[in-house]
Amino acid sequence: MDKKYMELALREAEKAYNEGEIPVGAVIVEDGKVLSFAHNIKNKSNSVIDHAEIIAITEASKIKHNWRLDECDIYITVEPCPMCASAIHQSRIKNIYYGCSSGRENNTKIVKEILKQDEINRKTIMTGGLLGKECMTLINNFFNNKRKK
Amino acid sequence: MDKKYMELALREAEKAYNEGEIPVGAVIVEDGKVLSFAHNIKNKSNSVIDHAEIIAITEASKIKHNWRLDECDIYITVEPCPMCASAIHQSRIKNIYYGCSSGRENNTKIVKEILKQDEINRKTIMTGGLLGKECMTLINNFFNNKRKK
Repeated sequence: MDKKYMELALREAEKAYNEGEIPVGAVIVEDGKVLSFAHNIKNKSNSVIDHAEIIAITEASKIKHNWRLDECDIYITVEPCPMCASAIHQSRIKNIYYGCSSGRENNTKIVKEILKQDEINRKTIMTGGLLGKECMTLINNFFNNKRKK
Repeated sequence: MDKKYMELALREAEKAYNEGEIPVGAVIVEDGKVLSFAHNIKNKSNSVIDHAEIIAITEASKIKHNWRLDECDIYITVEPCPMCASAIHQSRIKNIYYGCSSGRENNTKIVKEILKQDEINRKTIMTGGLLGKECMTLINNFFNNKRKK
């Protein structure tokens, strides 16, 4: 776990913020090398698939010419949704480091279940709270501004 | 629910089978019109994202210039994984009709939890067993052949 990768994920989340997208950023790292980074572009691309994590996984798989990312870690500014958690798990990513919680208890519960699905002979380990305050502030600012409008 | 769309999904699954991919096909239908159809190409594309459902959702969203597919139904030959279930739910698709079960009890449980996540003010209804025998035979043949090799 290295704070500098979460700082990069936060820069990605800020790009989403500036584009009017829910500010989430993701970075995939292998052996101290950044493989890919991305931010949420769901509204711009008109696709629920285009979460930061999915774009980062797609890019990392392209670079490695392999869907197995079993030596990689992913840094995400916010706890993943079930779609992204399952994509991360299926790609065999070792560790998820996220910043702040989704604030939705049921989401956390489902995500934890997904990460220990045993048909994939591997568990993804998830650790939260890395630069949690900064990640949370960005999300809160986004939704507060949205409410004001 | 209309059997003819599952027949089309089965044709897609057969394409996957012939390409050496786990045979899963998906079709998205809106008002009796096929919007998109796809099959699993995970190994060919080297990406865990490229499940039939995700490709079909991406294509349908492109056609509609909208990530909301709230008047659509999806036909899938096999019960979805959590990644695809969550993508379907987030895209507001109304109904999932699938052929055969994944055979993994824990997957079914997680998928059901995802489809009633309440932060999205909408529940996706899932109905299984449409051409279940045909869909199951295709999957079984695939894994039996794989074991023989």
